[in-house]
Amino acid sequence: MAYKSGRHFLQIPGPSPVPDRILRAMDMPVIDHRGPEFGEMGKRVLEKLKGVFKTECPVIVFPSSGTGAWEAALVNALSPGDKVLMYETGQFATLWHELATRVGLEPEFISGDWRHGVDPEKVAARLKEDTNHEIKAVCCVHNETSTGVTSRIGEVRKAIDSTGHPALFMVDTISGLASADYRHDEWGVDVTVTGSQKGLMLPPGLGFNCVSQKALAAHEKSGFKKSYWDWGAMLGNNASGFFPYTPATNLLYGLEEALKMLLDEEGLENVFARHKRHAKACRIAVEHWGLETLCQVEEEHSPVLTGVVVPDGHDADEIRKLILDKFDMSLGTGLGKVKGKVFRIGHLGHFNDLTLMGTLSGVEMGLALSGVPINKGGCQAAMDYLAETAD
Amino acid sequence: MAYKSGRHFLQIPGPSPVPDRILRAMDMPVIDHRGPEFGEMGKRVLEKLKGVFKTECPVIVFPSSGTGAWEAALVNALSPGDKVLMYETGQFATLWHELATRVGLEPEFISGDWRHGVDPEKVAARLKEDTNHEIKAVCCVHNETSTGVTSRIGEVRKAIDSTGHPALFMVDTISGLASADYRHDEWGVDVTVTGSQKGLMLPPGLGFNCVSQKALAAHEKSGFKKSYWDWGAMLGNNASGFFPYTPATNLLYGLEEALKMLLDEEGLENVFARHKRHAKACRIAVEHWGLETLCQVEEEHSPVLTGVVVPDGHDADEIRKLILDKFDMSLGTGLGKVKGKVFRIGHLGHFNDLTLMGTLSGVEMGLALSGVPINKGGCQAAMDYLAETAD
Repeated sequence: MAYKSGRHFLQIPGPSPVPDRILRAMDMPVIDHRGPEFGEMGKRVLEKLKGVFKTECPVIVFPSSGTGAWEAALVNALSPGDKVLMYETGQFATLWHELATRVGLEPEFISGDWRHGVDPEKVAARLKEDTNHEIKAVCCVHNETSTGVTSRIGEVRKAIDSTGHPALFMVDTISGLASADYRHDEWGVDVTVTGSQKGLMLPPGLGFNCVSQKALAAHEKSGFKKSYWDWGAMLGNNASGFFPYTPATNLLYGLEEALKMLLDEEGLENVFARHKRHAKACRIAVEHWGLETLCQVEEEHSPVLTGVVVPDGHDADEIRKLILDKFDMSLGTGLGKVKGKVFRIGHLGHFNDLTLMGTLSGVEMGLALSGVPINKGGCQAAMDYLAETAD
Repeated sequence: MAYKSGRHFLQIPGPSPVPDRILRAMDMPVIDHRGPEFGEMGKRVLEKLKGVFKTECPVIVFPSSGTGAWEAALVNALSPGDKVLMYETGQFATLWHELATRVGLEPEFISGDWRHGVDPEKVAARLKEDTNHEIKAVCCVHNETSTGVTSRIGEVRKAIDSTGHPALFMVDTISGLASADYRHDEWGVDVTVTGSQKGLMLPPGLGFNCVSQKALAAHEKSGFKKSYWDWGAMLGNNASGFFPYTPATNLLYGLEEALKMLLDEEGLENVFARHKRHAKACRIAVEHWGLETLCQVEEEHSPVLTGVVVPDGHDADEIRKLILDKFDMSLGTGLGKVKGKVFRIGHLGHFNDLTLMGTLSGVEMGLALSGVPINKGGCQAAMDYLAETAD
């Protein structure tokens, strides 16, 4: 590959670019994870972390990927052979479903077309049929990173409540948290699963479980044998700011800086509004080009990423490759079922208007150079919207 | 000021954004500047540095700003009361002229309109009149940072030669070196003056003099009293990689990394071509908007920056302020004579197509929001050119 000058545009839907000040915050000596300085830091971070989940519940932090946090949620609150109801919103819902099977659960998968979020009615209908309450948990993905479709978690909660079914409610918001509006307590989520490398603007390496009292009660009765993922050992240590095994110390330094930025400086509601505005500008460009977004429901468009459908006869990965080669920008590949048919534009985390315009310009030039028939002027249309709504 | 997410666009014509890898190279322990490790590093850097000046001559590195390197050039090669011929290409030529007066020289200033580079004919005409060879040096600015006009240094050299006049030839390429084509030896420059914070992609803090044999001979006879700026003490120490006083050690680490990027990886000719292409794309946008560049000579457009003239009735600094507030981008202010009438777009150093498109989008939105009458579509026109010429 030829020498690339300037900054790479990392516009995959996470990992997202890590702000310099977070890199600097992590670029510090490792300290004794059993010493008093660590304990103080641990207590501060674990307490403040609740703010981004909008919860009073404890948040457990694993040195892990998001996949680890998925597994932790399941093996802590459930037992081998339990039935769980999952919903096929896209590739990540599919992978969580596979994981559930592998650990010994009996997941049932409501199928979906990857272009809509969770249909609360379908969840309610299935729970109503389950008169013996064999289903122990409902698992949904909040922001499907593979499609750019966001599910209406509050409405799913209401649908579950309407049936009076006692199943736990588990939500993956790995790519949603701290970019898209999310409310663990208000939406009555029992286990929220997330990771560090998206809206939290950190490198990958931390997995999170935010757990309700109901989930903790279920944990007491869980029949899974577990050690690394055990919430009990974690919460016992966390009370004094410590961890049962070696934590990812420097990622926690970074997390403390990220929480300052999100909660104290920009403010969560501003973070959400910024993401929605950039997603809207992105869709204006896509529509102007005459292309379809993968998401087909207006109120379910993700503020985090936009999945763009490539016309028949064109390979999305070839377009992505050209854009990487010529304009040094990484876009998300189409995953699973939509491989080659879709590319994904990430517009999350540490991001602003001019970076969006650079991003959209790279997409427009790449589409044109790939011979995809588009109406030029998508960037201009996005720019008009940004200028109108700049504050 | 409201919280700003994402990366600031530092599009002033220097200091230019410092690449992460250069920041990392500098983020190392300070070492003993009299120890053997330093000596090896010093020798490597001083030798390799010649490559960016295209010279076999020694390059002297001061812990200083560019202003310090201006003063060093004058006080080493000249004597109090010497006449020097300078040329008013813009604000920086004007400041160098003032400095020459302050140190005790008698500079003569050929006036200019800030929209053209040095006219070689005018230099030759003046030297021809100076039959007693009272003029000891001709001083020109290669890339006028205040205007975006580049002077044709090779042609000035030929003009001097055509007169047979023995004056030294001193050139300020503070904002030109390592972005715009520059040839110390081929163009017969006696003292080249530059700084670290432009094409070399470093923070400010280093000033450079590249000195010919003729300049060194003049140094022997210089009547100026000097200590800090004395080339003699520098060159004596430099032979073994050391400095006569404490050097800016960590900036030298960064310089070594920058030289690797410029010379070993991208290659100087590619660096120059990249800058010319981005400058051209920028001018295409400016022309499409219906605005004038300050530079009025096609072959003198700077590859480093573009000076844009704002229509009567609009204040360039108000536009810059709006762009900073709304789009978090810094553009260069109009300096001296053109204050309020001009803003400057920097497109130098660590820079690429998508960063240019973000930059131009910010300018287009800012102009529109400021009520400047422009033809929309300048970004589209620039994008068409970039796509056509992408490789």
